[in-house]
Amino acid sequence: MTQTAPMRGVLAPVITPFSPDLRPDPARLIAHCRWLLAQDVGLAVFGTNSEANSLTVPEKLALIDALIEAGIPPSRMMPGTGCCAFPDTVALTRRAVQAGCGGVLMLPPFYYKGVSDDGLFRAFAEVIERVGDDRLRIYLYHIPPVSQVPISLGLIERLLARYPRTVAGIKDSSGDFGNTRAMLERFAPQGFAVFSGSETFLLATLRGGGAGCISATANVNPAAIAALARSFEAPDANERQAALDRVRAVFQRFHVIAALKGAVAQASGDEAWATLRPPLVALSAEQRRELASALDAIAFTMPGLPRARPTSEASVSTVSG
Amino acid sequence: MTQTAPMRGVLAPVITPFSPDLRPDPARLIAHCRWLLAQDVGLAVFGTNSEANSLTVPEKLALIDALIEAGIPPSRMMPGTGCCAFPDTVALTRRAVQAGCGGVLMLPPFYYKGVSDDGLFRAFAEVIERVGDDRLRIYLYHIPPVSQVPISLGLIERLLARYPRTVAGIKDSSGDFGNTRAMLERFAPQGFAVFSGSETFLLATLRGGGAGCISATANVNPAAIAALARSFEAPDANERQAALDRVRAVFQRFHVIAALKGAVAQASGDEAWATLRPPLVALSAEQRRELASALDAIAFTMPGLPRARPTSEASVSTVSG
Repeated sequence: MTQTAPMRGVLAPVITPFSPDLRPDPARLIAHCRWLLAQDVGLAVFGTNSEANSLTVPEKLALIDALIEAGIPPSRMMPGTGCCAFPDTVALTRRAVQAGCGGVLMLPPFYYKGVSDDGLFRAFAEVIERVGDDRLRIYLYHIPPVSQVPISLGLIERLLARYPRTVAGIKDSSGDFGNTRAMLERFAPQGFAVFSGSETFLLATLRGGGAGCISATANVNPAAIAALARSFEAPDANERQAALDRVRAVFQRFHVIAALKGAVAQASGDEAWATLRPPLVALSAEQRRELASALDAIAFTMPGLPRARPTSEASVSTVSG
Repeated sequence: MTQTAPMRGVLAPVITPFSPDLRPDPARLIAHCRWLLAQDVGLAVFGTNSEANSLTVPEKLALIDALIEAGIPPSRMMPGTGCCAFPDTVALTRRAVQAGCGGVLMLPPFYYKGVSDDGLFRAFAEVIERVGDDRLRIYLYHIPPVSQVPISLGLIERLLARYPRTVAGIKDSSGDFGNTRAMLERFAPQGFAVFSGSETFLLATLRGGGAGCISATANVNPAAIAALARSFEAPDANERQAALDRVRAVFQRFHVIAALKGAVAQASGDEAWATLRPPLVALSAEQRRELASALDAIAFTMPGLPRARPTSEASVSTVSG
């Protein structure tokens, strides 16, 4: 058996705050992470919705260090570490393992398209061998709509055969529950943790023996999503899934990352949250009004969200969730 | 008028040699660059066919330095500098400009798909403003089959309106000559340099007022491609284009990067060239035989290609093209 328990439940690809000159803002990130943890949501920092691929490797290494120094429990962290160049993936993965992170979420190298399963196997194997640490737990990141480089069932099978302890699970962001079901049926019985890529399929995934979900919307609706994950066998589960779906539908009417940041800016009174790094663009004022109005219409709130602080230069130790 | 003359003619996205443990090999790269220059082919190092996106930023910075230290003329270099995270693009572009490179070939940030022209404009503008150097000449890199992030005519127009000196041209790797023709008609008259993404459209591009081509196959067939670019108005131009097409067709029967490296390994007797970084995979022995046989059938040779050296550890100064 593995030494590290598989991760379960709900994780957020934590949105990344930026300063006005577009530097990552560790203090606000730490505060948001503390709020998510308080709602029982784990931290998939550096996911797609974290704008992770708009961050450099040194920026990500520094943010991992800042989170750890702030006392964020690494066991609840699953940083995204998959880059195009394998030495970058090795560097980020090694740091995450050394910090004690519960796992890493690993994109395949995503620039070259139409690559073979053999090539992808070698890419993951190269990283695993070079990190060379028994504590490493990889959650594969299957997100073909964005990466355009799918992780096939055959590739998973091959990776599990060679690295059964290290390859711990997958996030399926294909948007195709048929694919998630196939993964659940083939791999969950041997302890492989299948996360759906959004809470849309949370109930279905848990009923199929999955581990939970890693969802953008967990940045704004963490308590309700985590509650469903904890009690998915309760009689009101279907209704609660429907309630989650209504919230998600509002965000999906916009560019999701921009909408998440706009909603957090609105609810916290902290406009610094509204900034995105190019090529992504913040919601317009008109879109912000539409979003606020749509969220009001479903009586959506974010209780306990950290409020705006007078300055973004406050030291890490003064920030509390 | 600009201070730096626009780049013209034929450039190769120079293939990147690796050591057995997958480190970039500057000595072999320098030797190959010297051979290309001797055939009148410029150096688009860090292009798609260079496996640029499998290299880290520090690796690319070190290779730029090694090329310059080896005396490769920077005026003939157009390094690829476009990364997903704009600070990486800034760092590479700044180094290229400071080294005196004739231009840079810039991918848009390519992880996020379906981004707006507004977001892409901001991404390029952020880099241009932060590099803040009048010597910068950007050649945009339109390669939708791989990047999946196209550079539209509207975006080019907007960039040219704002940065007419800096935005110097484009490489069109769409594979759609209709798109190249539209770029030629709209932007070439104002001095915008349009390169086709392969020699397949070299003659058509030059006849339409374009600047030349930046082509994978220029790594292996540089002299003939450069000769056509120099004398495209000669009476035998169509026949020479057809001869180029026959060579290219052989490489296109395989994964092109693997085939280029296989052919260079074969012709140089230097098997070190056959290595690719994952997720790309070298040709199999069987594919290597097929490639060699197909190249023999069209009497293809690479005269003057640097031969294998006894050790890959030879110092840079002992390497000559």
